[in-house]
Amino acid sequence: MKKIVQGIITPLVTPLIDNSRLDIAGLERLIEHVISGGVHGIFILGTTGEAQNLAVDLRIELIRQSHRIINKRVPLLVGISDTSITESIRLAEAAGRFGADALVSTPPFYFMMDQTELAEYYESLVPRLSLPLYLYNMPANTKINFDPQTIRRLAENPRVVGFKDSSGSAPYLQQVMHEMRNHDNFSIFVGPEEMTAEMVLLGADGGVNGGANIFPRLYVDLYHAAAKNEIAAVRTLQAKVMAISSSLYTVGENSSSYLKGLKCSLELMGICNGFVASPFTPFNEQQRERIKAALEKLRISCE
Amino acid sequence: MKKIVQGIITPLVTPLIDNSRLDIAGLERLIEHVISGGVHGIFILGTTGEAQNLAVDLRIELIRQSHRIINKRVPLLVGISDTSITESIRLAEAAGRFGADALVSTPPFYFMMDQTELAEYYESLVPRLSLPLYLYNMPANTKINFDPQTIRRLAENPRVVGFKDSSGSAPYLQQVMHEMRNHDNFSIFVGPEEMTAEMVLLGADGGVNGGANIFPRLYVDLYHAAAKNEIAAVRTLQAKVMAISSSLYTVGENSSSYLKGLKCSLELMGICNGFVASPFTPFNEQQRERIKAALEKLRISCE
Amino acid sequence: MKKIVQGIITPLVTPLIDNSRLDIAGLERLIEHVISGGVHGIFILGTTGEAQNLAVDLRIELIRQSHRIINKRVPLLVGISDTSITESIRLAEAAGRFGADALVSTPPFYFMMDQTELAEYYESLVPRLSLPLYLYNMPANTKINFDPQTIRRLAENPRVVGFKDSSGSAPYLQQVMHEMRNHDNFSIFVGPEEMTAEMVLLGADGGVNGGANIFPRLYVDLYHAAAKNEIAAVRTLQAKVMAISSSLYTVGENSSSYLKGLKCSLELMGICNGFVASPFTPFNEQQRERIKAALEKLRISCE
Amino acid sequence: MKKIVQGIITPLVTPLIDNSRLDIAGLERLIEHVISGGVHGIFILGTTGEAQNLAVDLRIELIRQSHRIINKRVPLLVGISDTSITESIRLAEAAGRFGADALVSTPPFYFMMDQTELAEYYESLVPRLSLPLYLYNMPANTKINFDPQTIRRLAENPRVVGFKDSSGSAPYLQQVMHEMRNHDNFSIFVGPEEMTAEMVLLGADGGVNGGANIFPRLYVDLYHAAAKNEIAAVRTLQAKVMAISSSLYTVGENSSSYLKGLKCSLELMGICNGFVASPFTPFNEQQRERIKAALEKLRISCE
Repeated sequence: MKKIVQGIITPLVTPLIDNSRLDIAGLERLIEHVISGGVHGIFILGTTGEAQNLAVDLRIELIRQSHRIINKRVPLLVGISDTSITESIRLAEAAGRFGADALVSTPPFYFMMDQTELAEYYESLVPRLSLPLYLYNMPANTKINFDPQTIRRLAENPRVVGFKDSSGSAPYLQQVMHEMRNHDNFSIFVGPEEMTAEMVLLGADGGVNGGANIFPRLYVDLYHAAAKNEIAAVRTLQAKVMAISSSLYTVGENSSSYLKGLKCSLELMGICNGFVASPFTPFNEQQRERIKAALEKLRISCE
Repeated sequence: MKKIVQGIITPLVTPLIDNSRLDIAGLERLIEHVISGGVHGIFILGTTGEAQNLAVDLRIELIRQSHRIINKRVPLLVGISDTSITESIRLAEAAGRFGADALVSTPPFYFMMDQTELAEYYESLVPRLSLPLYLYNMPANTKINFDPQTIRRLAENPRVVGFKDSSGSAPYLQQVMHEMRNHDNFSIFVGPEEMTAEMVLLGADGGVNGGANIFPRLYVDLYHAAAKNEIAAVRTLQAKVMAISSSLYTVGENSSSYLKGLKCSLELMGICNGFVASPFTPFNEQQRERIKAALEKLRISCE
Repeated sequence: MKKIVQGIITPLVTPLIDNSRLDIAGLERLIEHVISGGVHGIFILGTTGEAQNLAVDLRIELIRQSHRIINKRVPLLVGISDTSITESIRLAEAAGRFGADALVSTPPFYFMMDQTELAEYYESLVPRLSLPLYLYNMPANTKINFDPQTIRRLAENPRVVGFKDSSGSAPYLQQVMHEMRNHDNFSIFVGPEEMTAEMVLLGADGGVNGGANIFPRLYVDLYHAAAKNEIAAVRTLQAKVMAISSSLYTVGENSSSYLKGLKCSLELMGICNGFVASPFTPFNEQQRERIKAALEKLRISCE
Repeated sequence: MKKIVQGIITPLVTPLIDNSRLDIAGLERLIEHVISGGVHGIFILGTTGEAQNLAVDLRIELIRQSHRIINKRVPLLVGISDTSITESIRLAEAAGRFGADALVSTPPFYFMMDQTELAEYYESLVPRLSLPLYLYNMPANTKINFDPQTIRRLAENPRVVGFKDSSGSAPYLQQVMHEMRNHDNFSIFVGPEEMTAEMVLLGADGGVNGGANIFPRLYVDLYHAAAKNEIAAVRTLQAKVMAISSSLYTVGENSSSYLKGLKCSLELMGICNGFVASPFTPFNEQQRERIKAALEKLRISCE
């Protein structure tokens, strides 16, 4: 059995005109931008895609449009995370209908769960899905961490094909990789772009990195360098990723700085509308100027 | 200006047949049970109502049915909490259309926000609502606490009529009451039933207490005793509330024990179906027996 | 068996000249101030006393001096909290030698523990103490909460005479009081002054309130009003406590604001040196002016 | 200026007979064991050394004995972390007197601090130290994380020579390395052994790994493989480290499992007494058998 995708998957930002309308032209430009940058896959409706802040119907429209634009050039992964299993299944059905390649799901994120409840949730969900599923660990937002043993338990179902970790904890992700060391077909993807290279060096399958919306080629190059064990190249490219991370995601002091920074950058590059869905708001003029200055510097070295 | 409601508001559990169907007959019995127990209001689609775990359409159907059954006998408050402002507004519109008296809203709960983003969210939401709004603080689930100053800022809009606190922090709630001491029309409601009496003694408007699904009269009596400063009665009734809390909400060790305990009790009393929406599952047989034994003891003293 | 103390216990600030020297004259004035204010007991070397930030030898000197000055006029409670059990026992021996009435102990606070380890720690410590012990719950600092069942287990030893809770969680403290409802000789004290009155109304034994360093009479009056169920008086006095809490403890945005506010106030009142032990530093001039202005207003209503 | 040490530093467990007595013979055997295993330095009185749980006088005796035994064969680093700056300075003076090479310090860990207070603490401490200092980040225990900017601010003093991070967060440590990229003489050490190799590959100076008490040679080999960019060897050795981590540190479900596992292993290997200082206790017989079985398997592959 072949893996669906390895390498860099762009967790696509969702171009918006306002809270209830997609920026379709922006979506088209953005998808062309990342595909021409060489990314290996596209993941819509993740955290970076602001999925939770969009109505389910709008999310379904995004699935339809994304598939139309991508048109099978790279695998399309679709986030179905929701607090309501009914809505998750509705999203999964839309993903199947519109030709997506796989699904991605965080645990429901309002109530707190324990590991048994977490496992039972997925054991109830997976049989109702027509596409393969990646588990998505995002404990800062969902308040729960997948125990490595829970991942192994869920991977007994071959339709659970991989794990995307956005915990940022390297010892934890090493434990997961150790626990899954004999599951050759199970994929491990890394969320935080700051740690993708080191994990690929140690055996991970790739990164789902927000910066690959802006500078897709850089992240692809970093992935290849790491996959080929070219340490000198890895260090050089890693420094560029850190320059992006430390300048574009740190304007404002909120955890929304990352999202606002990405969208503001894409708007400044003429790729798509920078509107950020409620409860967030775009940067003010002064913050925008800081992004603009940082971006000009970065484009010289990172494009 | 008169307050919409004071006293005990039942945060109604949502009687379900399965994840996508309401137990309408159970809903009718439950509403009759709590109204005949004397509660001053009913709050649907709160945390106890598992709102987040239900599809939005099902939530709208619950609003319609609840209003039909309550038929204006007590005020109906409707939770509109969602991560998508579009869905929150859709719920609010349904609440208005079906005759609800007020809305209740937690902050969006996937992303982390700061106080400015929190305030701006409500300043964007409230003008789009046709009914008065209670702010709902539930930091364990939403990962954010309303600063007292944020509450005062939002209460400058007279359509923000009150605050329901489920933080459990007494110093915090005292600070909120102190900050709002000159806002005579602003209501303060307490979530945790274990601390409602003490807060009413110090000036709060009432409690939104899950136990008032099972033993509505007890909570109403406790409220009246506290509102009339009858300390001896308060202490006697408080002991009963603590007996409920320490036996019905503690089977299993998860935070879902509270919800499962409530629904299991209501099923054992013949009031409604005990189905718990995904990601949770009802108690197993042994846990059910523990609830049954506890309930039999409690019914003697608490009904 | 009689309880050692009920009512208001001042968690005494430690008057310091610098990190390694006591302000003895200040200590004398402070003790006279709080005793003349009517407090029922004095607790040295608690969180408010900055115990952890002082060398053990200095703590022992403080025990000696405090006992000399108090001279048995009110009960003296001594904090022995330390990460090293050897040092805790050394402090306990000094407390016994210098005539203290009881000991107070938080769990060791560097490593994380579970409830079994917590219980075993106290079961190992208590037999080595010559004085009765109050358990001291301070989860924000120690990273562990005493389960109500752990408290009951430890109270099987009659030398464990009470529990001081600084968690701020009212449902939790109600659960503890419920769990201990048949232990007539076991005392429950409340740390946060904002919630002492409501807990005394529901049966707690008193408060260990930092504000009783500055305005001891106010806290004593509030305790008596609550103990006699005089709700109108409780509400009036509670408003004064909230005025103190919201103005003197909120200059600066750190959790050290409380401590710095207390010491700055006492220095401005001419009672003792305002030096705060490392890692903290006293307020700057502007912050000091804010305390001064607040204090002048409060002294009119609260002294 | 040359760095004091690079490579693997053993955070030495403290061999104890009981809470107040060192196991000197065990200390001698342990030090010989790790030095003969090739470690590049020894760090006493860290978290693994249970420093906080030992009386300060005992800690000073450990400094004296450790220096005597090591006798300058490898650099000796001494932890001076304490909540009292007076005690920290006393420890630092002893370290200087007994010939240590450098000091290591976590922030004081009882009270919560902000970044300004954290910086000011070190700006007050460092001038009073006669030896160079490594900052030690251990947020799970100290409740504070060094901001990268705080590290750079503190490193302006050349006596602050390095940073040891035990946060486990790879994005964070990458940010720190990025922030310090132009400070050639500043060292970065990694606490968690599961992530040392990947960080050395990306530029860190080495690891302070608890497992290097048991299998020092393995960790040294892993360090060298990473420092020489030998990825194939890194992956093979990393698998062994993960086998240790997942079997020796996970008996019992507490965070004390790591410490108890280390000490139990060393006792089973005949190296030193397995006594664990209060508040912890050694494993019971059944847990000990599990360690024994795991250890026998590991010794075949890891020694």
